[in-house]
Amino acid sequence: MVLNEEICKSNIARMAAKAKAAQVIFRPHFKTHQSREIGEWFRACGVDKITVSSLNMAMKFAEWGWNDITVAFPVNCLEQEKINALASKIRLNLLLAHSEGTRQLAECLKYPVGVYLGVDTGYHRDGVDANNYQKIDRIIDIVAPDVNMKFEGFITHAGHTYNARSKQEILQIHKDNLRMLKNIKERYISRYPQLKISLGDTPSCSLADRFGVADEIRPGNFVFYDVTQMRIGSCEWYNIAMAVKCPVVDINRDRNEVVIYGGGVHFSKDRIDREANRPLYGLVAENHTDYWGNIIPGVELVSLSQEHGIIHATDKFLDHLHVGDIVTVLPIHSCMTADLMKTYHMNDERIAIHI
Amino acid sequence: MVLNEEICKSNIARMAAKAKAAQVIFRPHFKTHQSREIGEWFRACGVDKITVSSLNMAMKFAEWGWNDITVAFPVNCLEQEKINALASKIRLNLLLAHSEGTRQLAECLKYPVGVYLGVDTGYHRDGVDANNYQKIDRIIDIVAPDVNMKFEGFITHAGHTYNARSKQEILQIHKDNLRMLKNIKERYISRYPQLKISLGDTPSCSLADRFGVADEIRPGNFVFYDVTQMRIGSCEWYNIAMAVKCPVVDINRDRNEVVIYGGGVHFSKDRIDREANRPLYGLVAENHTDYWGNIIPGVELVSLSQEHGIIHATDKFLDHLHVGDIVTVLPIHSCMTADLMKTYHMNDERIAIHI
Repeated sequence: MVLNEEICKSNIARMAAKAKAAQVIFRPHFKTHQSREIGEWFRACGVDKITVSSLNMAMKFAEWGWNDITVAFPVNCLEQEKINALASKIRLNLLLAHSEGTRQLAECLKYPVGVYLGVDTGYHRDGVDANNYQKIDRIIDIVAPDVNMKFEGFITHAGHTYNARSKQEILQIHKDNLRMLKNIKERYISRYPQLKISLGDTPSCSLADRFGVADEIRPGNFVFYDVTQMRIGSCEWYNIAMAVKCPVVDINRDRNEVVIYGGGVHFSKDRIDREANRPLYGLVAENHTDYWGNIIPGVELVSLSQEHGIIHATDKFLDHLHVGDIVTVLPIHSCMTADLMKTYHMNDERIAIHI
Repeated sequence: MVLNEEICKSNIARMAAKAKAAQVIFRPHFKTHQSREIGEWFRACGVDKITVSSLNMAMKFAEWGWNDITVAFPVNCLEQEKINALASKIRLNLLLAHSEGTRQLAECLKYPVGVYLGVDTGYHRDGVDANNYQKIDRIIDIVAPDVNMKFEGFITHAGHTYNARSKQEILQIHKDNLRMLKNIKERYISRYPQLKISLGDTPSCSLADRFGVADEIRPGNFVFYDVTQMRIGSCEWYNIAMAVKCPVVDINRDRNEVVIYGGGVHFSKDRIDREANRPLYGLVAENHTDYWGNIIPGVELVSLSQEHGIIHATDKFLDHLHVGDIVTVLPIHSCMTADLMKTYHMNDERIAIHI
């Protein structure tokens, strides 16, 4: 896994500048890179608040000096020991998605935490329906009298932007999202004048310049971007900051196929579903000495088993390819690939994921 | 990740007994479990030859006392240092898939290795078309005069059995596979009287009792089995030896959905494609104190993001479910899940993947 430091730092700087211009808090999601060193690149851009997706990640980043962390995953009180250990040391924010989980948290907390109520504005994964004020009130009524839970506001992840097909569609989802969040803010602001609205998907944060009612943005994937983001219009190909260099181990000219050492244990089996049962697992870019160049048309990673990948290639690409060569694959989903590959190579340097 | 030791040991013993009865060498694929301790369970059944899918795995198992290892992945001479380090210590077998890779191996080898020629009998992933004797001869002509490469025979993986829909279809693929391998053996046996035929997919090895022309079987997945194997008929539900216990973090009764802490970084994103865009990522079984019971009809893992899983459930299942409960998920693909989860829990004991 090769990381282009320049592109990565420029992705970070651009998003930090956008948040500043829009006067929203920038609390990037660190689940994408999970790296101490890349975390420091954010710190250099003025970031001191972060988002993670597990308590284990929160514990690691706390160890590395981050002391304002939101765990953007519905609270799981089976991990109460980790919650209390963190809450005793840092400013910890947790996500409430259900009244049962909220009651359990009230019972197990020994130290103060901030809590955000997770609202569903259309992604339909987790959280309370943004229009269901009865359910929202039920959770707030548990939070309000509790000495250890401080109500911070509402959090949402409009993950349905990942399924969009165009910039226009992403911006429409973003607009709808902001409208629903505005209704919520208006309803609760008099009771909680300090309440914050936090949103966080990379497509919206990449394409929108205005965040309306939102006080905070939490994008994560933008640090590397990937083929999915490029295809839906969140980024251009030259914003993709990481790729995997894979050895060619077999070539089948009859089927226009290349077998690479690079499978599901390297890329994950995340994929883009296309028409007619043709999943896409990655695209191939030109090899440049240390990094990579343009995406090569018609050369696609179309199948993965545990360690093997199958690339379907053009005759032109195959003309100059040999077993033992390296092909550069831009992954479909950089978060999953980074989680599996664990070591970023940059020229002669290596930085590791330690989580 | 919970491992049922009894089921696992019984899967191992059954396959070892079948190989013995059929008078074929049993060289199990260790990529599924990747565990030192589970390796010892095989050794207790008389196994002393193993298969792995990478040189890193071969190095670990060599360290753990295994000294006859086949790396069933097309040889990659960019790893020549590892190849030579292993070849200097153990009996190492490598897989040749292409004449270019074969020539590169001849150039880099410093110690003797066994080589198998990989033939494609219909899976169309890697290796030489089983009917293309010209290509086979081209590779053998490089091997024959080489002092360090000992030609051991032909190896195949009929991975297309994984896409079968019935036991009958698997057995038909197995029959076709054996017919093609028989033609190859007949053609080359006079020149190489010691040549071996090695085959290795879990579906064929689970359902067939006879292995015809084959001298060796290399199944791997059968050690745990999974929902994929159950659905195609390789095993019954009660042969599945591992499951993942996932906390419930949110429940949406309106959508009949349960959100679990268990996502793509735990299960991988491997899936079974069903009609009408309804992928399946796992099935839910009844909770028993340490292990699990019957599969619960109509309760399915239908979506995964990085850390979240979405289960679609029946009203009956939801009636007694609360946030904070545990659900037991049988994975679609145990090899990928084990590779990600890394620690097997058995009652109070834990065994880890150290690779």
